[in-house]
Amino acid sequence: MSVKVAINGYGTIGKRIADAVASQDDMEVIGVTKTRPTYEAKMAILRGYPFYAASEESVGRFKDKGIEVQGTLDDLLEQADIVVDGTPKKMGYKETYEKAGVKAIWQGGEKHELTGLSFNAQANYDEALGADYVRVVSCNTTGLIRTLYPLHKEFGVKFVMAVMIRRGADPWDTKRGPINAVEPVLKVPSHHGPDVQTVMPYLNIQTTAVKVPTTIMHLHSLMVRLKREVSTDDVLNVWEDSPRILFVEGEEGIKSTAQIMEMAKDMCRNRTDLYEIAVWRDGTHVVGDSLYYYQAIHQESDVVPENVDAIRAMMEIEKDNMKSMKKTDLALGIEC
Amino acid sequence: MSVKVAINGYGTIGKRIADAVASQDDMEVIGVTKTRPTYEAKMAILRGYPFYAASEESVGRFKDKGIEVQGTLDDLLEQADIVVDGTPKKMGYKETYEKAGVKAIWQGGEKHELTGLSFNAQANYDEALGADYVRVVSCNTTGLIRTLYPLHKEFGVKFVMAVMIRRGADPWDTKRGPINAVEPVLKVPSHHGPDVQTVMPYLNIQTTAVKVPTTIMHLHSLMVRLKREVSTDDVLNVWEDSPRILFVEGEEGIKSTAQIMEMAKDMCRNRTDLYEIAVWRDGTHVVGDSLYYYQAIHQESDVVPENVDAIRAMMEIEKDNMKSMKKTDLALGIEC
Amino acid sequence: MSVKVAINGYGTIGKRIADAVASQDDMEVIGVTKTRPTYEAKMAILRGYPFYAASEESVGRFKDKGIEVQGTLDDLLEQADIVVDGTPKKMGYKETYEKAGVKAIWQGGEKHELTGLSFNAQANYDEALGADYVRVVSCNTTGLIRTLYPLHKEFGVKFVMAVMIRRGADPWDTKRGPINAVEPVLKVPSHHGPDVQTVMPYLNIQTTAVKVPTTIMHLHSLMVRLKREVSTDDVLNVWEDSPRILFVEGEEGIKSTAQIMEMAKDMCRNRTDLYEIAVWRDGTHVVGDSLYYYQAIHQESDVVPENVDAIRAMMEIEKDNMKSMKKTDLALGIEC
Amino acid sequence: MSVKVAINGYGTIGKRIADAVASQDDMEVIGVTKTRPTYEAKMAILRGYPFYAASEESVGRFKDKGIEVQGTLDDLLEQADIVVDGTPKKMGYKETYEKAGVKAIWQGGEKHELTGLSFNAQANYDEALGADYVRVVSCNTTGLIRTLYPLHKEFGVKFVMAVMIRRGADPWDTKRGPINAVEPVLKVPSHHGPDVQTVMPYLNIQTTAVKVPTTIMHLHSLMVRLKREVSTDDVLNVWEDSPRILFVEGEEGIKSTAQIMEMAKDMCRNRTDLYEIAVWRDGTHVVGDSLYYYQAIHQESDVVPENVDAIRAMMEIEKDNMKSMKKTDLALGIEC
Repeated sequence: MSVKVAINGYGTIGKRIADAVASQDDMEVIGVTKTRPTYEAKMAILRGYPFYAASEESVGRFKDKGIEVQGTLDDLLEQADIVVDGTPKKMGYKETYEKAGVKAIWQGGEKHELTGLSFNAQANYDEALGADYVRVVSCNTTGLIRTLYPLHKEFGVKFVMAVMIRRGADPWDTKRGPINAVEPVLKVPSHHGPDVQTVMPYLNIQTTAVKVPTTIMHLHSLMVRLKREVSTDDVLNVWEDSPRILFVEGEEGIKSTAQIMEMAKDMCRNRTDLYEIAVWRDGTHVVGDSLYYYQAIHQESDVVPENVDAIRAMMEIEKDNMKSMKKTDLALGIEC
Repeated sequence: MSVKVAINGYGTIGKRIADAVASQDDMEVIGVTKTRPTYEAKMAILRGYPFYAASEESVGRFKDKGIEVQGTLDDLLEQADIVVDGTPKKMGYKETYEKAGVKAIWQGGEKHELTGLSFNAQANYDEALGADYVRVVSCNTTGLIRTLYPLHKEFGVKFVMAVMIRRGADPWDTKRGPINAVEPVLKVPSHHGPDVQTVMPYLNIQTTAVKVPTTIMHLHSLMVRLKREVSTDDVLNVWEDSPRILFVEGEEGIKSTAQIMEMAKDMCRNRTDLYEIAVWRDGTHVVGDSLYYYQAIHQESDVVPENVDAIRAMMEIEKDNMKSMKKTDLALGIEC
Repeated sequence: MSVKVAINGYGTIGKRIADAVASQDDMEVIGVTKTRPTYEAKMAILRGYPFYAASEESVGRFKDKGIEVQGTLDDLLEQADIVVDGTPKKMGYKETYEKAGVKAIWQGGEKHELTGLSFNAQANYDEALGADYVRVVSCNTTGLIRTLYPLHKEFGVKFVMAVMIRRGADPWDTKRGPINAVEPVLKVPSHHGPDVQTVMPYLNIQTTAVKVPTTIMHLHSLMVRLKREVSTDDVLNVWEDSPRILFVEGEEGIKSTAQIMEMAKDMCRNRTDLYEIAVWRDGTHVVGDSLYYYQAIHQESDVVPENVDAIRAMMEIEKDNMKSMKKTDLALGIEC
Repeated sequence: MSVKVAINGYGTIGKRIADAVASQDDMEVIGVTKTRPTYEAKMAILRGYPFYAASEESVGRFKDKGIEVQGTLDDLLEQADIVVDGTPKKMGYKETYEKAGVKAIWQGGEKHELTGLSFNAQANYDEALGADYVRVVSCNTTGLIRTLYPLHKEFGVKFVMAVMIRRGADPWDTKRGPINAVEPVLKVPSHHGPDVQTVMPYLNIQTTAVKVPTTIMHLHSLMVRLKREVSTDDVLNVWEDSPRILFVEGEEGIKSTAQIMEMAKDMCRNRTDLYEIAVWRDGTHVVGDSLYYYQAIHQESDVVPENVDAIRAMMEIEKDNMKSMKKTDLALGIEC
């Protein structure tokens, strides 16, 4: 049996999840929705996804441009087992999904309260088994959990201080700035720390954040106090065995987020996405009683495999998180 | 018979030409060279290219990092029919290639005088038939020829004024600026006009250029006076039938170079490259006696198919330029 | 008698005009308005300007922050001879000013139709003599007129093609992008050409425009066909004698807009503004039948002296435009 | 008696120190040097500084451009009591200064070992009394000391973790990138922590750093563990009483480094410099056992007043650091 997945909102994240779902053998994309006849709509059709209008009103817009739609969101939901919501935050589709009786996954732009269940495949897959509504945490939160959860499990974590240097806008988003400034999140703690705690409530973490004029990746500078005395190699070894972490090295010419994205282009992935968290091997150092490291987050794609795993957990087609992750990662080219 | 192609310099352009050559059925990559054990070297090996050290000295550097090389550039050239030079400009490999008795292709960073023959597949393929040394013109020059040659052929061109808004650095190149400035090329004409004339000596063209803080594409704003009175549709129709031009539309949400690159990511091309010149359909206007249009150039890849065609012309495995272009484009996914 | 000037909207442009007016001996700032208790409001008070709330509603906002206001806009207008509108475009204050019976000056964000009279001190000062409502044209339009009017007057102009490379946002404006893209104005002609013609209706000009990720200046690349054959020196000599043009040289290290702004910082001007249009002496070339040149526009300040002159013309305190400009420029440090 | 100060290297920092020295009543600029006839050389002359060629060879370059020099560096040093070195780092002028028998001040680009004495006016003025060679620490280090020293003095500091988000290049420097990337300093600790300890050897501090595509300011995100339990207000009160700290507020519209620089423009300072460290009042929070805050550093100017104070200490014309700072700050407009 193949799980029937609807994608509501074929944008930055929706289109990536669509492709990821389509690449798995136990689920399929039965349709994607769009509100406007943009180039992304055309590309969805070119990729062969059954195409639906997000609402009655938008049907006309597509017709005007000669784009045929298979129906509306409601028609799509009727046939779906589960819907992945890729719409802008706070669009309030929950009632629609409930009425249609489909399970639903939201992204990290939504608040934890919407579902009461925030998800990361490594940290709390089991909690999502059979669940109706799940929120996959944001790209930054996912990034933090990917490297912190293994540290917690292996060594125990006393305290984390993370400074997030965030990209100002996604590559396609030309309206948002800043062009030449650094903008701190004045509220301390920033929302990222508490957001990690929706998945790892036991973690003592503090975060601050600044926005900078770049489009390609977020970068985190972290300080972690562990419960055990460890060496830098101990830490690297734990991450080596953890899923969805990719080591990069300044020594090999990867000095910044730019060269990481260049390497991703060389890796033949779909859309040159980097689903893994990139950790600098030679930027990881245990100094005194603390571990310091840098990691970079491809904000457009690191949550994509998590969405696939969430589908498996919610549909209970795989009970073991490691097996689901392995399956997802093989299909996406993360493992080979 | 498959043409044996060596790639000297597996960088921004070399790696793309390697992949493009490998995708054709009448030529093959017999090896690539590199001077340093960077991530790009690792990626070359991962992609399965026979790997050579650029020089005796660099052999040791690779050995130190546990990277095995098949030999040096000299060893590689011995087996090659033709070498594509992807090294930084003015590296002076000409004597080496002559001594090895291989044909050679250089990129547009070199001067016309190096080969005496500058190349564009559409405009002067025939001149390269059987040639030993060819220079494929630069990304900007290639972009100008792609749209101007059809206009010249169909309507005749009286005068061209092109302002090139150039990206400051390639995406991976984090050393070069500017971060927040616009820098004009004070010399007028800029070198681009005369460079077009190395291929189209009959064209009356004037160019100016400025450098801006972006990494993703060049953009050209052009004014063209044609020899015949034409409508905007006449022009669009001619380009519709011309190779390696892709129309984009502001109407469909493609407002800037950023959305063009986003669309390219959606197109499943290798490295999300855009080999075509992107022309705004709704940015093309005949006003009074002049044609105005904007085009965007993916500086890293538009010359890639031209290199493949140059190989065919020089090796005389295809005498008809349209057939070579068609073959190249099918393999690269430009046509389908 | 000193002209009583009200400044409605103490923002990017309003604050600069306030300072410029205050520096003249025949006019004075009787008050400035603001809608919100921002740092700019505090700075207005620190500079000693009588401070007014833009509306009844905003009075409370200031009181909450302990900022005392002298009254509202209406109170201010009662005492004013003339008001300079520095509010965001299309705020629709015209009726308010009419009701108060004060003359008014708007900025170039408004349409020509609002006043029917668009102004540049050099080109059409006389038309504004005694006028009630005047629109000072935008920074880009002012820049074009500054260099084109002298060419028109001295040599006659057949045709102008101007490509405007525009800054994406002002330095303080961190909301607007693009961060990494070039965005053309697909409509051709862009509005700039017709806007120049509101002041110089006899000029045959065509313009295109692109937006780039910089905050500091606009840059124009121009091609001009003159009615007479001239040398580069002829052109430079005419500009040498024209007001509000400043020559810069690549030879002396001024290679981009960044070094122009650095030089402006060294010039001890208020806010390090550059009221003049910066023209590259060694970027000016007569080639064939055309003149090519580059100019840079400090978008925040080049219209400031024009506003001062407009006040003089409208109040008829000076009938001779050259005398007004001279007086303005001495006070602003443009001439010494 | 007025101290005779020579400025060797009239660039970004040299020109600012020249102006600052010139604004004091107990010291004077007896000359500045330059190696090339750039616009900065012209500006030095325009500002009225006696102008010297940096070396014999450069004399000719100035003569060629019609710029008269008063002599060479050697001639200048002969008359000087003290020289401030504003040359690029590692230029090795130490022997020259020793031979000339003048005291000398270097900037933070040099290593501590050059002088054995690193300086901050607040923290260790006394150590510089009568010294021959002093190094004023870098802009970032100065920024850290400005806010940390008062915390240390008042509350005691257990541990500091500072993440420095550094501007990629100065505003005038268009050669350096990155244009679109974030680049971490992979070495941990970065050099900033140890550099603070050259002045405050007793401070337990750890620093990491990243470079981002902005030109205007550095921004620091800090976490500080104090020896006493304190409230946010306690901390703000201490800084309120400390020299060269300026509070800014997000509430008042200062959301990023861009609005800080806009405010600086409104403050009528020379070159719109901001000598103070800007600390966000509403970005300062005591959470749990730690203090978190953000500060922004105007990299071009925060060390300027420190250089003036260093001159006073070394020449022993003022023994009390608070008095020297007060005098400096009044002349520079920091206090009024």
